[in-house]
Amino acid sequence: MNKKQLFEQIKSKKSFLCVGLDPVLENIPKHLLKYENPVLEFNKQIIDATKDLCVAYKPNTAFYESMGLKGWETLIKTWQHIPKGIFTIADAKRGDIGNTSAMYADAFFNEDKSGMSFDSITVAPYMGKDSVGPFLEYKDKWVILLALTSNTGHSDFQLHKTPEGKLYEEVIRISSQWANSEQLMYVVGATRGSEFENIRRLAPDNFLLVPGIGAQGGSLADVCEYGLNKECGLLVNSARAIIYASKGEDFAEKAREEALNVQKEMEQILLSAKLI
Amino acid sequence: MNKKQLFEQIKSKKSFLCVGLDPVLENIPKHLLKYENPVLEFNKQIIDATKDLCVAYKPNTAFYESMGLKGWETLIKTWQHIPKGIFTIADAKRGDIGNTSAMYADAFFNEDKSGMSFDSITVAPYMGKDSVGPFLEYKDKWVILLALTSNTGHSDFQLHKTPEGKLYEEVIRISSQWANSEQLMYVVGATRGSEFENIRRLAPDNFLLVPGIGAQGGSLADVCEYGLNKECGLLVNSARAIIYASKGEDFAEKAREEALNVQKEMEQILLSAKLI
Repeated sequence: MNKKQLFEQIKSKKSFLCVGLDPVLENIPKHLLKYENPVLEFNKQIIDATKDLCVAYKPNTAFYESMGLKGWETLIKTWQHIPKGIFTIADAKRGDIGNTSAMYADAFFNEDKSGMSFDSITVAPYMGKDSVGPFLEYKDKWVILLALTSNTGHSDFQLHKTPEGKLYEEVIRISSQWANSEQLMYVVGATRGSEFENIRRLAPDNFLLVPGIGAQGGSLADVCEYGLNKECGLLVNSARAIIYASKGEDFAEKAREEALNVQKEMEQILLSAKLI
Repeated sequence: MNKKQLFEQIKSKKSFLCVGLDPVLENIPKHLLKYENPVLEFNKQIIDATKDLCVAYKPNTAFYESMGLKGWETLIKTWQHIPKGIFTIADAKRGDIGNTSAMYADAFFNEDKSGMSFDSITVAPYMGKDSVGPFLEYKDKWVILLALTSNTGHSDFQLHKTPEGKLYEEVIRISSQWANSEQLMYVVGATRGSEFENIRRLAPDNFLLVPGIGAQGGSLADVCEYGLNKECGLLVNSARAIIYASKGEDFAEKAREEALNVQKEMEQILLSAKLI
């Protein structure tokens, strides 16, 4: 999916919500355990209940890998169930030397080889340019580079001062020489509200993937105040608040209600910003 | 496996060789294509031919993920085939927020959940302490943190100056507060020979996992000059030079010859250093 198509989807759905598909077998409703693959059934029902309210789905690969071979199969089948036209993010935080990153690109972008073809993958920046390059060779596929993350450990290295600025600023500044805003997004935690103004100065045109709303404590209003740009420029992720809105038989219905609440809030924000 | 057991293995095998199990279907001998799982058969024969000459095996997860569901199954079965008592490294370069890294720990350390229980995993440091912590909760399991990598992109961020030193030095200095040398190793590329003296000053007791010998151009002698410590402290990885020593029917035999050459060189180094 290219940037124009993504923005069109945002305008038509009046939403920039990304739903995080991070299921844990122990946390899904008990009535689903009768299915041959309860986690897949859970994901399918969540997707079916929210697909008109969000513009992206983001399965975090860790949740699938933790379930072994069956988990990897669930990841593939979850990707297959997401309707075409919705932006898909493999939240995999990969990155390796060039020839090995090319293998990761096959894993997540090359359906013929791996059974999956996400629109994008999250990548850790530590190994530099050649760890990112192979992903950029796929037309209309995206790298979403970790910049300033939502966790407490963000302060261990990301805020380190360098002669040119903080490390995360350097990650944005240097990586923007590798690709433009048609293929490169950044992860910026919603819990980092005060830094959004600064990030928009460095990356005015890039989409930002923003986790940390809800369970992690970030505020949508704070993020949008400085994060919005002329093409929206934000994909705001919510996982637990939506997928675990209820742990009963009404989980999908409650997930929809929660997603609808967020979509309505986003619609107001888009209207106020005159983007729709 | 704990550090003492690892050093005992090094002394008894007179080797600190790690064999990188990074198979690509297109590159494995044609006569293996008759097997139901050619890549698994390739790995098994490589393991059987080299297991008395190396102390560790390191499958890079990218090579398996690129083959989809069958690839993940091959990774699990490859781990199962490695004899107990040999150190196993999941070269996965993972790392996420704390509760998600706990899922990756399940994926690679918790056999009951995932079918695999490697001794160690490589982790990218960018997300900081809580991205590493969950792996350290497993007794006698290791985090191998990326410090100074072998690829060209190492210079994009790892050498950035901070007030306390280069970024990779900060990674070593700060992470050494999270765990001691009984659970923490560092990845240092063999192509970074001139930095080994400096790294040993910062991490005198930690094992270093050293890729980049052979195909990537690093020298074993250069690495050992400054890298060896009183418990050897080095695991030197070789992948392509061993596993593709021949692409014919004699591939396992030739892999053994190549591994034996490296083991003999390592034996001389260990003797010269009076470690055996």
